[in-house]
Amino acid sequence: MLKEKIEKLNKLDSKLSAIFFAQSLLEWDSETIASDGGVEERAIVAGEISEIYFNTFVNDETKALLEELDERKEELDQVTKAIVFLYKRKFYNIAKIPVEDYTDFQVLISKSYSAWEKAKNNKNYSIFAPFLTEIIKYQKKFIKLRGKGGHPYNTLLDDFEPGITVEILDEFFSELRKNIVPLVQKVCDKQNNEIDFINKKFDIKKQEEFSKYIMPKLGFDTSRGMMTTSAHPFTLNLSRNDVRITTNFKEDDITNSIFSTIHETGHAIYEQNIDEKFGLSALTTGVSMGIHESQSRFYENNLGRNINFWNVNFPVIKKMYKKELNDITVNDWYRAVNHVKKSLIRIEADEVTYPLHIMVRYEIEKMIFSDDIDVNKLPDIWNDLYEEYLGIRPENDAEGILQDVHWSGGAFGYFPSYALGSAYAAQFEHAMRKDIDVDKALKNLEMDEIKEWLKDKIHKYGSSKMPSEILKEATGETFNPEYFIKYLYNKYEI
Amino acid sequence: MLKEKIEKLNKLDSKLSAIFFAQSLLEWDSETIASDGGVEERAIVAGEISEIYFNTFVNDETKALLEELDERKEELDQVTKAIVFLYKRKFYNIAKIPVEDYTDFQVLISKSYSAWEKAKNNKNYSIFAPFLTEIIKYQKKFIKLRGKGGHPYNTLLDDFEPGITVEILDEFFSELRKNIVPLVQKVCDKQNNEIDFINKKFDIKKQEEFSKYIMPKLGFDTSRGMMTTSAHPFTLNLSRNDVRITTNFKEDDITNSIFSTIHETGHAIYEQNIDEKFGLSALTTGVSMGIHESQSRFYENNLGRNINFWNVNFPVIKKMYKKELNDITVNDWYRAVNHVKKSLIRIEADEVTYPLHIMVRYEIEKMIFSDDIDVNKLPDIWNDLYEEYLGIRPENDAEGILQDVHWSGGAFGYFPSYALGSAYAAQFEHAMRKDIDVDKALKNLEMDEIKEWLKDKIHKYGSSKMPSEILKEATGETFNPEYFIKYLYNKYEI
Repeated sequence: MLKEKIEKLNKLDSKLSAIFFAQSLLEWDSETIASDGGVEERAIVAGEISEIYFNTFVNDETKALLEELDERKEELDQVTKAIVFLYKRKFYNIAKIPVEDYTDFQVLISKSYSAWEKAKNNKNYSIFAPFLTEIIKYQKKFIKLRGKGGHPYNTLLDDFEPGITVEILDEFFSELRKNIVPLVQKVCDKQNNEIDFINKKFDIKKQEEFSKYIMPKLGFDTSRGMMTTSAHPFTLNLSRNDVRITTNFKEDDITNSIFSTIHETGHAIYEQNIDEKFGLSALTTGVSMGIHESQSRFYENNLGRNINFWNVNFPVIKKMYKKELNDITVNDWYRAVNHVKKSLIRIEADEVTYPLHIMVRYEIEKMIFSDDIDVNKLPDIWNDLYEEYLGIRPENDAEGILQDVHWSGGAFGYFPSYALGSAYAAQFEHAMRKDIDVDKALKNLEMDEIKEWLKDKIHKYGSSKMPSEILKEATGETFNPEYFIKYLYNKYEI
Repeated sequence: MLKEKIEKLNKLDSKLSAIFFAQSLLEWDSETIASDGGVEERAIVAGEISEIYFNTFVNDETKALLEELDERKEELDQVTKAIVFLYKRKFYNIAKIPVEDYTDFQVLISKSYSAWEKAKNNKNYSIFAPFLTEIIKYQKKFIKLRGKGGHPYNTLLDDFEPGITVEILDEFFSELRKNIVPLVQKVCDKQNNEIDFINKKFDIKKQEEFSKYIMPKLGFDTSRGMMTTSAHPFTLNLSRNDVRITTNFKEDDITNSIFSTIHETGHAIYEQNIDEKFGLSALTTGVSMGIHESQSRFYENNLGRNINFWNVNFPVIKKMYKKELNDITVNDWYRAVNHVKKSLIRIEADEVTYPLHIMVRYEIEKMIFSDDIDVNKLPDIWNDLYEEYLGIRPENDAEGILQDVHWSGGAFGYFPSYALGSAYAAQFEHAMRKDIDVDKALKNLEMDEIKEWLKDKIHKYGSSKMPSEILKEATGETFNPEYFIKYLYNKYEI
């Protein structure tokens, strides 16, 4: 009897994972090569497939199955227990949403992506505003249906980082603000600003060559994934054996593609290193956005902006761009890739100002879900907050409120996980350095030891443990933002 | 009541079309960019999605709905009537297959593609043979379950070209053989064989440029589709507004990519020009493989190998390859692209010998489904038939039995539609020339009139009319292979 139920669960997991695979592929295709002409049909397809997912998952049979298995969880093996836990969480997150609303929302966000893209290209927020209004309306309705009490925004935060609340974040961000705002000022006052050389013209073919060189060096398995380009870099895991990243090449900014590639490679390595025993399952993906971002940021910042990393890799770039980098030393390069600047674009921000960009979005999202906000006023609020936190003001919506893709996909509550990711990464690094000579590994470009540590402490578990468990077991303590602040002060207040 | 049933039918059509869209995208992805690492998971996904398709479609509810609507077909509008007709045909084609067999077969062909690719790359049939054996076993089982009597192979032929049987094809091919074998000999004896210039080195970037130049000139709408590369060129329609082709560039054969691109563009134009009133429906695709091939071949051969076409387009190529084509005239070029040669590779064959390549496959497929054939002996049978029909023998399996992808996808009965396509194309051209001065249109590269004729007589109907109806209405008579034979004799026996 129990055996049959477990088989039923595994079959459900396989089926839902297959549908999710198809949805992911649709998304991949939309954001990489699909032509604009097909947007209407793709939206219909997205809606139908979502409905199939919903109906396959949300029904009395699934509910009974999950409850029965949960009641007998002591008899289950570890993996099955984790599957039950994960699906129960998923189930009660969407079960209260009527299927029509669920699928209409999927159709809406499929269309919204194109609207956002068009709005951004035209620097015109009003193209996107009606879609954003609808998306917010749906999300508020969903919060009412599935909310667990407390601040309405908590429901959305919990989707991306289980256990995280407005209360925790208010404290976290206030701590960051207290320490980072003065740090930014100090660094900006004293740093050497001669870094124009990174904005020379850097042939894109060679940038691509460097990306393809560095990915496997970092530990990306090229037989189980690939890289291409898209407007907004992202990582997508169809399965642990097919993990794809996109990057974005700008001729006049060589560091843009380098750090996008390293960042996404960090995400991809996480996915590729999940234990293969989970197979094609909902467990076979990173557990939360915060933990995911901790891995991408760890590769991008903690490793990729370390002087030892560049001591060995800068000569490779210099060889590619003999003319452009002729008189540049590795120290010039290191200084440039760690240059702190009050800037407008989040994904181009340095690691010190980065959390300030997140705070802008956090404040706005909190506002949206606290009040009846006028969507048309959001660009002004956005610009005001940039002026307040960073002392600069966007000149148009493309470099302001339209810069990020997330809201077009309905992903409110996602941004804070970026800041959490940086903080987790610092905490992980602190723990790792007790076991490994990180600088020596970087100096020799021997990344295996680092990758194995991450795999063993974080990656291999996929979604079979909660973020807080992983953090605790890997570092020996609960979430502690002090490591991040110390990391920044050690690095920048030299 | 009737209205509700029609709504139910449309919902079913939309859902099945969405699942088919997802399946098509999986196929596209597998054959273009997916990494080998993910093949196992993709096979599982293919199986699960097929099962979902099957279970959504094949059930008593669908059966009742289709039968009820069919009984009241006089009350239905034309489009609904066509949907009912199409789905009834589809339903009884698969309803007798057990769902497990159906999905196992989908998993098998998903894996077989990789095995075929590997076998071809290694010139080693034995890698593919076990998969082919399994595929044949399944197809034979399916024929027993769903066969309508007559020759077992008829069931498969009917899948690709409704109404076509072994009896019709035996007569068709015997007619072709009688006329083409002596024609090939005559042409080979008298033609000028100095065409080596097409095997110089032709920069691939420029070949791509030419493909991208010629596609829209022919009538391909680039806002509703795109082109990329794959091992075996193909066309895939996700929707009428997202039609994709692949081509294949060979540095040492410039004509290869040109005619692949023109051929696939012919397929793509057909799909793009289906009436938009059908929306995302099973009606929105070409009606049969034979009619589809008639369109690709019409563009490739009837238009693309016409002297008037090259009078205007050869200068474009010559400008791209100044050095390589310096002393080549348009007549040299015309002679080269219409050169007749007894060769081994079907997709590189000229239009005269092409049907002989098809006859090899036709004979083998007929054998496979007539007898208990030993799959391991097929390479020898293949090679013997090439020797008999074309007077040459493959030296390895890659240029022999492994050259085509079709069998790896279980597509037996497909090949004859290529030869039917050529014959249909000649019949269509004969009819078109009564309405349009085709040569003048080509001379001026004004393809609109031609495209509109095809759209009006063939394309716009999608799958809402049977192949024989389309042929009859467009040309005023039933299928008549004499036009093809006349076309070849007129063109080659100068």
